[in-house]
Amino acid sequence: MAVYTDVTDEALFAFLADYDLGEVLSFKGIAEGVENSNFLLHCQRGFYILTLYEKRVNPDDLPFFIGLMEHLATKKLSCPVPVKRRDGAALGTLAGRPAAIVTFLDGVSARKPEALHCAETGRALAQLHLAGQGFALSRHNALSVDHWPALFEASRARAEEVSPGLATEIAAELDALRRLWPSDLPQGVIHADLFPDNVFFIGRKLSGVIDFYFACTDALAYDLAICLNAWCFETDGSFNATKGRALLQGYQSLRPLAPSESDALPVLARGAAMRFLLTRLYDWLNVPPGALVRPKNPLEYLSKLRFHQTIARAGEYGLGA
Amino acid sequence: MAVYTDVTDEALFAFLADYDLGEVLSFKGIAEGVENSNFLLHCQRGFYILTLYEKRVNPDDLPFFIGLMEHLATKKLSCPVPVKRRDGAALGTLAGRPAAIVTFLDGVSARKPEALHCAETGRALAQLHLAGQGFALSRHNALSVDHWPALFEASRARAEEVSPGLATEIAAELDALRRLWPSDLPQGVIHADLFPDNVFFIGRKLSGVIDFYFACTDALAYDLAICLNAWCFETDGSFNATKGRALLQGYQSLRPLAPSESDALPVLARGAAMRFLLTRLYDWLNVPPGALVRPKNPLEYLSKLRFHQTIARAGEYGLGA
Repeated sequence: MAVYTDVTDEALFAFLADYDLGEVLSFKGIAEGVENSNFLLHCQRGFYILTLYEKRVNPDDLPFFIGLMEHLATKKLSCPVPVKRRDGAALGTLAGRPAAIVTFLDGVSARKPEALHCAETGRALAQLHLAGQGFALSRHNALSVDHWPALFEASRARAEEVSPGLATEIAAELDALRRLWPSDLPQGVIHADLFPDNVFFIGRKLSGVIDFYFACTDALAYDLAICLNAWCFETDGSFNATKGRALLQGYQSLRPLAPSESDALPVLARGAAMRFLLTRLYDWLNVPPGALVRPKNPLEYLSKLRFHQTIARAGEYGLGA
Repeated sequence: MAVYTDVTDEALFAFLADYDLGEVLSFKGIAEGVENSNFLLHCQRGFYILTLYEKRVNPDDLPFFIGLMEHLATKKLSCPVPVKRRDGAALGTLAGRPAAIVTFLDGVSARKPEALHCAETGRALAQLHLAGQGFALSRHNALSVDHWPALFEASRARAEEVSPGLATEIAAELDALRRLWPSDLPQGVIHADLFPDNVFFIGRKLSGVIDFYFACTDALAYDLAICLNAWCFETDGSFNATKGRALLQGYQSLRPLAPSESDALPVLARGAAMRFLLTRLYDWLNVPPGALVRPKNPLEYLSKLRFHQTIARAGEYGLGA
């Protein structure tokens, strides 16, 4: 949850003068997203989300993110749709930051996902991958396997503060991942952060997917491996094979995995666990003074990584079962 | 801004089962209020605010607060209206806390109030005072003149950390206020916290008043003195007499002050400054570990207090001018 930037009503009214949304009826900071400042905006035309992109988002990436949401919406994926200004642009500047308005998407995140949520999420992920095929822009994954060693170096000296032996264990796994990482998998647009926070449900039905600010071009099956990590473990650290099966079956009902993708799933899942272990480790060790967001415990992902290291075949996740 | 308590979807759905609001379409923590956790709740029936009352609110006071909002709404004051459960109650329990749902009120707070906002606020305050006359319940003001010495004692030993000489200055002023404080002024329901955050505007028109969780029974003119402090000073600490005049004229257009109230205004304004100086001083010195809210600087109110000490007659605030 986060609202970082204060927006004066003066600045807001000036920003909105470029849009055709009618009079401002309400404007409230909301606890959604970790990287950006988000506001609920009620205008005569309806409800919207206004996002200010804070410093963790590279402004050069915004045309990719905004363009992707526009593209996916035309392909009938339910996601926030950027609202255009009168001059046709979907990006403006507010309080010194890049800012965009998107449509308000109804739905509630599943705080305790069940198998049915995993199945719906699997289907939506496949839908996203298929819908993304025609998207013209691409974006390098700045948090992929090539970048993990540098990310690790930024925390290595202090990793032992978090858990004894952590640095050695990560170093060995990074060596293994470098050797084992597949390079020939089908590529495309991936969400790269499809955690339960970013999937909305109304009742038992998935109503939409949000937060495309890690989206990039990478192996599609890696996105599924991220979801295995994010959706299918219990709070006690155990892997729930029923949820794994639901996620994978949901995905394959729309986009069956190629054999190379199934074979790679265990190592992709190790990699996905490593990616979140490393970013959480860094955030854990580098809490800025006065931070409003408490960092998440990196060790949750160490435990998930160790689980994936024991998996020999994707069938053990529930694939094809 | 604050969202303190995490609400699981399970707990939310169980809580809402007692209401007739239809299916939950959206539920988001919002950055509104400092004392409680507030959520935007979208159901089939419409948009609402769900509030969890955190530990700073005494549950015994909730019937007063909830009943007051209901009463004021029947008197056509625009404020959030509590939504009743099927059993007729307006209070329930969620995540272990007392919780209520109120109607969503459109409007935007004035971050930089101008004279027109002060005039509208003055009128709304008078309307609130008049509407409150028929309200059956009463609530002692736990932050009134009798309570300031004890509040001061809780910070006295460390007051010098904030500003040299502060403890001596507060002690002398508390002595003066005890001597000068009027006891014969017209009493009634006061809002007691009508800061710009708590007044909504759509365009140039006031659209409603929120946050009744300091409301109590006290001298009506003391509420106006709080507003003089909250609305009529510039960020450089100077008093803006145009805004003061607008606030007082707005108020008196609906409820002219009695001579005893006009005469008392300077000492009431000193008292109001003291009340916020003391609570801010306490909060400044007692930031809980991991706090999500940064305390406000108490010295803003020392500066306001010193200004009011120079005022001999209410005319200097713009009264009757």
